[in-house]
Amino acid sequence: MTHEVAVVPGDGIGREVVPAAVDVLDAADASIEFVHAEAGDATKAERGEALPEETRKTVADADATLFGAAGETAADVILPLRSVVGSYANVRPVRAYPGTDALAPETDLVFIRENTEGVYSGIESEITAGVRTLTRVVTDEASEAIADFGFAYAERNGYDRVTVAHKANVMTATDGLFLDAVERVSQRRGAAYDAELMDALAMELVMNSEAYGVVVCPNLAGDVLSDLAAGLVGGLGMLPSANIGDENALFEPVHGTAPDIAGDGVANPAATMLSAALLLEYLGHHAEANQVREAVEGVLADGPRTPDLGGTASTGQIRDAVVGRLP
Amino acid sequence: MTHEVAVVPGDGIGREVVPAAVDVLDAADASIEFVHAEAGDATKAERGEALPEETRKTVADADATLFGAAGETAADVILPLRSVVGSYANVRPVRAYPGTDALAPETDLVFIRENTEGVYSGIESEITAGVRTLTRVVTDEASEAIADFGFAYAERNGYDRVTVAHKANVMTATDGLFLDAVERVSQRRGAAYDAELMDALAMELVMNSEAYGVVVCPNLAGDVLSDLAAGLVGGLGMLPSANIGDENALFEPVHGTAPDIAGDGVANPAATMLSAALLLEYLGHHAEANQVREAVEGVLADGPRTPDLGGTASTGQIRDAVVGRLP
Ligand SMILES: CC(C)[C@H](C(=O)O)[C@@H](O)C(=O)O
Ligand SMILES: CC(C)[C@H](C(=O)O)[C@@H](O)C(=O)O
Repeated sequence: MTHEVAVVPGDGIGREVVPAAVDVLDAADASIEFVHAEAGDATKAERGEALPEETRKTVADADATLFGAAGETAADVILPLRSVVGSYANVRPVRAYPGTDALAPETDLVFIRENTEGVYSGIESEITAGVRTLTRVVTDEASEAIADFGFAYAERNGYDRVTVAHKANVMTATDGLFLDAVERVSQRRGAAYDAELMDALAMELVMNSEAYGVVVCPNLAGDVLSDLAAGLVGGLGMLPSANIGDENALFEPVHGTAPDIAGDGVANPAATMLSAALLLEYLGHHAEANQVREAVEGVLADGPRTPDLGGTASTGQIRDAVVGRLP
Repeated sequence: MTHEVAVVPGDGIGREVVPAAVDVLDAADASIEFVHAEAGDATKAERGEALPEETRKTVADADATLFGAAGETAADVILPLRSVVGSYANVRPVRAYPGTDALAPETDLVFIRENTEGVYSGIESEITAGVRTLTRVVTDEASEAIADFGFAYAERNGYDRVTVAHKANVMTATDGLFLDAVERVSQRRGAAYDAELMDALAMELVMNSEAYGVVVCPNLAGDVLSDLAAGLVGGLGMLPSANIGDENALFEPVHGTAPDIAGDGVANPAATMLSAALLLEYLGHHAEANQVREAVEGVLADGPRTPDLGGTASTGQIRDAVVGRLP
């Protein structure tokens, strides 16, 4: 069966790392057809909108999407795209990849971030001059969905510890509802977890990340805690992510457009290739997913390396090296 | 002039470290009169409320308050008390004190956290079964006040870098208003700053804390980022804090009630004594403030030490050692 994958490189190094990852996907799995689409700052400059209807449609119609990065327009591109694929779970594995200078090399975390609500509701008002509000939304439906996804993910991937981040001592009603939903799902599944205040968890992750596994988070908590954890493994450079919905999904590196090196052809494509591996897994191509992941990790371990990892290789040389390691 | 200081030990080790810090204050400065008041879990059990009207009144009438910690009722005690003293700025210096095992010993940060609004508004609603909202409030008045306080603090204390945390790419209207207010104040004062997304800042603080100085934050960002930073200097154990209002203020260690060691008489009183030093400074007793700070740091450096720092000393022995170092 052929799968259709939408490819949205975006801006900056997105235009370098996404093509490299597409070449790797192509080499790993002949059954994917690619459809290209545009979004981001350059698209806005050309067409007046960062995310044209055409791109939304391409992404909606595809079986999955590989996205790169967007510049100033990032929020106007990635938030709607997450919603176009119906994504309710943002999956962010954080570990120290070979070749990285990591503060906490033992880190092996996966953030399962609620991806539809919280302070990302988009509901803001001006009450009177100088007084504005934002409506944080928390529902049973989204809270149960993310809890269920998190417990299932932990089971499937052999993590024995699930931590649930919250701030229910202050956001009593909303995070209280979130915690009640988590508790119901855990009872139904017979799954264990610890609830931790997000502030205390921020400190614990810095001091003790190796003691944690899967971390289920409300939207903003997941945003901040996963970036914090990235700091423990040498930064966002190598981190992939998945935005999972019931019938569609979008995969993206956690890093941005890196304007300082964009255009130089030396961007590290590892995060995007690892995101492509998550995409293969999502499409059910488990063997190929493993092959890509192992090839990328092999190159990270043995070289060649891009300048961010102390080497001199180009994005194209990394692509060739990864493709060369595929069976 | 005699100052009246309210003393609210609270629960757990609060009942051990606060008396020790009061002894130090007493030894350092004879012009303080202490008034004791109760709050916390034990108070709730005895009187049905965690924060009796009597305690509010004592705190409101005093020139300043030294608070310890509260257990389960922490939010019901500390949030109203911050508001009783009219505190709009929560000041959290984070650095590695001598004797601490710190991941990032060069850290010298001060979080200036907005202390009245944001998601701490307390406005939550049930919209329908399974759907709840929280109203995040951001105003010109509170945003300008915290920015002004932050810039003044940086100037007064010789910090040349001010960073402002926000999430205005997602919370466009509310954090947009916050950033506009900061910009106005910076123009008025001729002060420089960098605005950084709170997620990116979480990563940067982990990787690069020594590059930062004063960090001005909305309420929840300050809660999470200051705990994160505590992780870089060995935890909350030694960190003091101040809640500053226009005519009153409350001082508290950042740590909690430590139920695992409460009652053993071995709690480390350093954070509370350093909070007492901030209190002396607030009351204008600068020389005495420095004397207390230096005495505490001297004991941390040379011992005796409590068990959390690898020693065997009791809270009382630390008190005696600190008092012994005062002029
Ligand atoms: C660009 C921004 C809207 C986005 C978010 O807040 O989700 C980013 O920080 C991320 O984590 O993917
Ligand atoms: C106890 C809690 C309400 C409080 C807060 O969120 O402000 C605490 O985490 C703190 O940082 O002092």
